[in-house]
Parts: sequence; C-alpha cells; structure tokens
Amino acid sequence: MKVETRIRPVDETARQAALTAWDRKAKPRGSLGELESLAARVAAIRRTPNPGPLEAVIVLAAGDHGYAAEGVSAYPATVTRQMVASFAGGRAAITTIAERAGAHLVVVDAGIAEPFDHPAVRAVRLGAGTANGAMGPAMTREAAVRGLTAGAELAEELAGQGFGIVALGEMGIGNTTAASALCAALLPEDPAAVCGRGTGIDERTLGRKVAVVRRALAANRPEPDDPTGTLAALGGYELAFLAGVCLGAAAIATVILLDGFVTASAALVAARIEPGVTDYLVASHLSPEPGHALVLADLGLRPLLDLGLRLGEGSGAALALPILQSALALLADMATFEQAGVDDRGS
Amino acid sequence: MKVETRIRPVDETARQAALTAWDRKAKPRGSLGELESLAARVAAIRRTPNPGPLEAVIVLAAGDHGYAAEGVSAYPATVTRQMVASFAGGRAAITTIAERAGAHLVVVDAGIAEPFDHPAVRAVRLGAGTANGAMGPAMTREAAVRGLTAGAELAEELAGQGFGIVALGEMGIGNTTAASALCAALLPEDPAAVCGRGTGIDERTLGRKVAVVRRALAANRPEPDDPTGTLAALGGYELAFLAGVCLGAAAIATVILLDGFVTASAALVAARIEPGVTDYLVASHLSPEPGHALVLADLGLRPLLDLGLRLGEGSGAALALPILQSALALLADMATFEQAGVDDRGS
Repeated sequence: MKVETRIRPVDETARQAALTAWDRKAKPRGSLGELESLAARVAAIRRTPNPGPLEAVIVLAAGDHGYAAEGVSAYPATVTRQMVASFAGGRAAITTIAERAGAHLVVVDAGIAEPFDHPAVRAVRLGAGTANGAMGPAMTREAAVRGLTAGAELAEELAGQGFGIVALGEMGIGNTTAASALCAALLPEDPAAVCGRGTGIDERTLGRKVAVVRRALAANRPEPDDPTGTLAALGGYELAFLAGVCLGAAAIATVILLDGFVTASAALVAARIEPGVTDYLVASHLSPEPGHALVLADLGLRPLLDLGLRLGEGSGAALALPILQSALALLADMATFEQAGVDDRGS
Repeated sequence: MKVETRIRPVDETARQAALTAWDRKAKPRGSLGELESLAARVAAIRRTPNPGPLEAVIVLAAGDHGYAAEGVSAYPATVTRQMVASFAGGRAAITTIAERAGAHLVVVDAGIAEPFDHPAVRAVRLGAGTANGAMGPAMTREAAVRGLTAGAELAEELAGQGFGIVALGEMGIGNTTAASALCAALLPEDPAAVCGRGTGIDERTLGRKVAVVRRALAANRPEPDDPTGTLAALGGYELAFLAGVCLGAAAIATVILLDGFVTASAALVAARIEPGVTDYLVASHLSPEPGHALVLADLGLRPLLDLGLRLGEGSGAALALPILQSALALLADMATFEQAGVDDRGS
C-alpha cells in the first residue's frame, strides 16, 4: 500500500498524565467510572494528555454479498441499494443520530450490486457485489488489498480534514453472514457459536446461515495466519474497506469508534493484519449477535452501551459518541480541587 | 399541597401508537432495541404518539446532613457548600455535561448548612442541614411536606416554561446514608444490603455507615405505610425536595430522568406516596451503590447506562439524555418503508 499503515504504540505517558489529571479534579477519585479510562485511552491514542472533544466522522460503507442468494437474510438483496439511497436522502436512522451527535457522515459504496449515482455517495467500488463465499472465494486477494488500501486512504484524507474520531458503520444484506464466517475463521470459533439472527431471521433461517458459514469454511479452507487471504475468501467489500479504515486510522493516531458485530469483525481482520490496531479501538455498544461479544473479548474491549441495538449503519457508534465527547470535555474543563476551592478528603 | 399532585395513568394508546410507528420505519423490526420502548414510554407520558425531542432541565438540589457528624463520608461536610459554589461557577462535572447535552441547569439550595448567596442558586431552604437521623427525626414532618410542596411547585413552574423532561441531580455530604436509610425502611431491606461506598469510603467506614442506618431505623421506627413520616424521620432536605419534583412532574406529564442512587431513593419516596409516579420515571444509569439496583428493581426500571458512575450531581442523567433525545428524534424523523422506497421483508 502507498498509504502509511505502520502503527506506533499508543502513548502511555499521555494516558498516565490523563489519569493523574482525573485524580486532581474536584470529585471523588474514580467517581466518573469508565469515562475516566475512556478519556485516558483517547489521550494515549492522540498522544496528548488532554485531547479535548474531537471532530467526528462516521464512515458508512455498503456492499452486496453473494451469500444473500443462500436465503440467509430476512430482507431481499435489493434493500442494500435502497438503504444507500435512504442514507443519501437523509431520513435514515444514522442520518438522524449523526446530526444530533454533531458527526459528519461519509457514505461509501464499497461494492453494491448496482451503482447508485449521488453526490452524497462516494464510489469505491471493489466489484458489483461479492461472489457467494459458500461456493469459493468471495473476492480476489487483489480486490481485498484494494479495499484495505482504499479504506486506509480515506482514513488519511479524513485525518487531514481534522477529524480525530472515525466511527464505523455498514450496510449490506448478508453481511452478518460474511462477518460470522470471518470471525469463525479468525478467532477461531464454531460457526454455531458466532451466527445470530441479524436483521431478525427465524430459527430455520439461522440453521441455514450456520450451514452456509460451514460450507464457506470448507470451500475456502482459510488460513488464520493469512488474514488478508481469509478476508478475500470469506468476503465483504464493505468489510475489506472498513478494515482498511482501521489500519489507516490507527497509523495516523485517529480514534476508531466501532458500531456492532460487522464493524467489529472488520476491526478483527485489521487487528490480525496489524495487532497494534487494537489500542486505537473504542467499542460503542454490545449487540445481541452472539459473535459480537466474542470479537470484543478477543480485542479486549468493553462496550459503552448495551441497549439491544442491531440496526448497524453506525447507529450504535453515533449514539455512544456524545458519551465519548463528554468524557473528553470533562477531562478538559472540570476544575481541580484547588481551582474549585473544594476540600480534598479532609476527614 | 396547593399544587396539583393527582397523577393520571399514562396514555397506553399513545404508547401503542408509537410502537406501531416504530414497526413501519425502514429498519428491521425491533432493531433499535431499547430505544423503541423508551420513546414509546415517553409517548405514553406525554400523551402523544410522537413527542419529538423535548426541552430538558436538570434540577440539582443540595442539602446538608446531620449524619455527616457520624463520619460516614470520605469528605468533610464543608464540601457540600463548596460544590454548590462550583455548580454556580460553571466548572463542575454537571455544568460541562449539561452544556454538551443541551440541558438547562437549575441549582437549588434545599437546606445546606450555611446559605450560599448567588444568582444561579435558588434558595428553597428547608433548614440549615438536617438533624442526625441516628439520634431521632432528621426533620419535622412539616419540613418534609414543605419540601415535597416546593419540589412539586418547581416542577409545575418548569413545565410552564416548556420543559418536557426534568432530570434529577443531588449534592450533599452524607446523603447516601440518608438514601440508604430511606430504602432500608421503604423497600424494606437490611441496611447491610443497601449501603455502599458512596464517595469512596473504606471498609471500616462502610461498617460505621451500616451501623448508623441501623441506629436511625431503631431511633425512629419509621412506618413504611407512612412514606412522608419516613422521609421526615430519616431525612434529606434535597431528598424531600426531589421527591416533590417527582410528584409535581408526574402530575403535569413531565418525563422524570433519574440519576443515581440518591435520586432513585427520592423517586421511591414519591412512588410510595403516589404509586402512579413510577410510570413517569426513566432510569439513566446504574451506579455501583448496591441499593441502587434494589430501588430500580422495586420501581421496575432498567437503566440505560452502566458505566460505574458514582458522582451524582445529575451527571449520569445528563450523559443519558442524548440517548433519550435521539430515540425521540428517530421516532419523529425516520422514514417508513414506504417513504424510503425500501422493500419490507420481501423474501
């Protein structure tokens, strides 16, 4: 790749300085709970003890999936493109939440079946939907590398525009099947432990989904120590692109805010390519997809929210964003005991 | 009381209409998880299927406590007044979070030891700190009724100013002891199961706190079926005031957003006076105080956040507010399947 993807360790000195600053604030020590470690994590990522609230952008990548032909979703594949139109039109869930959270939104066509020509949609088309991973490779290795590179390039471009937080979102009928296959291969884990109900499939469809993932693993025999090859085999153009966003964002000290299971799976691919990515991640929420908890545990992440969200689009990330920004604002603005004239543990 | 405290049942028709509206939105059914039931709850409270985002105000009530003389806090009693000064000065945690959440802040002196004269502090002084409940009644029944009335009056005033959400906050060295005593009496529950570390006390101080609550129960012998008498006996001027805010807000169809253990205890007092209050409550977060989970369970509430917050001031409520507002914005703004031109479960 031509873009920078060498990832530096995060700055532990900045993290410690942030934690020390928290202990001087006029409040009982540790009383802001996870907000304190969260802001310190961002300090370590941004390499400064006091990063303050940051400009945030949501990268919402869409793709179509050959898996959809297996009947693994509650919705027809045509819905991917219709939802991209809805993101561009501005009355989708993510457009509403992003606006309230003060986040910029970038919609990326990473490879939906039919192009959608609209000024609000950035075309980074790796193909016209992936092949069916249950029959063979979902995409070529070359397409996977192009996706990783294009994602990293976008991360670099967004950092250049001043965004310090990049939140990930996704849309693609069939993409929890692709994500489940990737997790089953990379964790590794049995497909039955990873697959969930996605958009709301019934028991019988769930059984079919597990079988499709088993067939994909059998057909491709992915090697966990070849994460790029595994990505190509099991697929997801938007997953390849978002894994690239993770690699590029980590290389340029941008905070990566994950959404649900699919974005976490993209981050897992990135972390298998470059383990240093992990320290740049923040988990926004825990979805009911059983694979999500497994991936977050593998990445060592604790989610901020647990609200039963399973919409995708970046919606959970956008909902958690105000909490992240408030943590940064508190670290920046709260008075110390001395400044506030408050007695520190006199008794 | 001269203010209206008759509480109507919430509007189940509006709740059902909101739930039906969610199912028409262009998203998998139920995929916004708890946001859907949350917005429907607000619809029922506001008696309209689509309440939209609401103006929000945080009522932060402060009081001093005779219990503090028993050495039950990690901080000296002087800190209550110093923190009130900090709220007025604008660099406390709650001022920062409230500003980011777009919430108005009303600071109330419900009875701190020495008055704090400042235009940003509303004096509703029920006394100069309560008496020590471990020795006898913390306040007179007349003072408790005055607190309930004054709180209800403020709720009515704020509703008149257009606020549809009132979030509760509190400050008072010793007030988790008062809240623990109230919960032990009203749930009822053993003091050892209710008391926690508050601002961060050690094991020995926690043992003393439990003993103080036992002494308060023994000294006052409160009757659970006399919640106002129990409130007076075990105390908390800010608790009396906030219980009154709950009664007044519920009577006028205002959404009540709770913060941590102390505000939940005030709501418990209100719910024991008027059980109809319960349906007007929203729980923002779960604190590590063991009594908090017990009170929320009693009130049938599930918290939105679980981040280890134990600061008080209304901080958890203010952090959860953007989630509540986003839920209302989504219910108001998201396109239906038909409007978005998205296929609903064609497969």
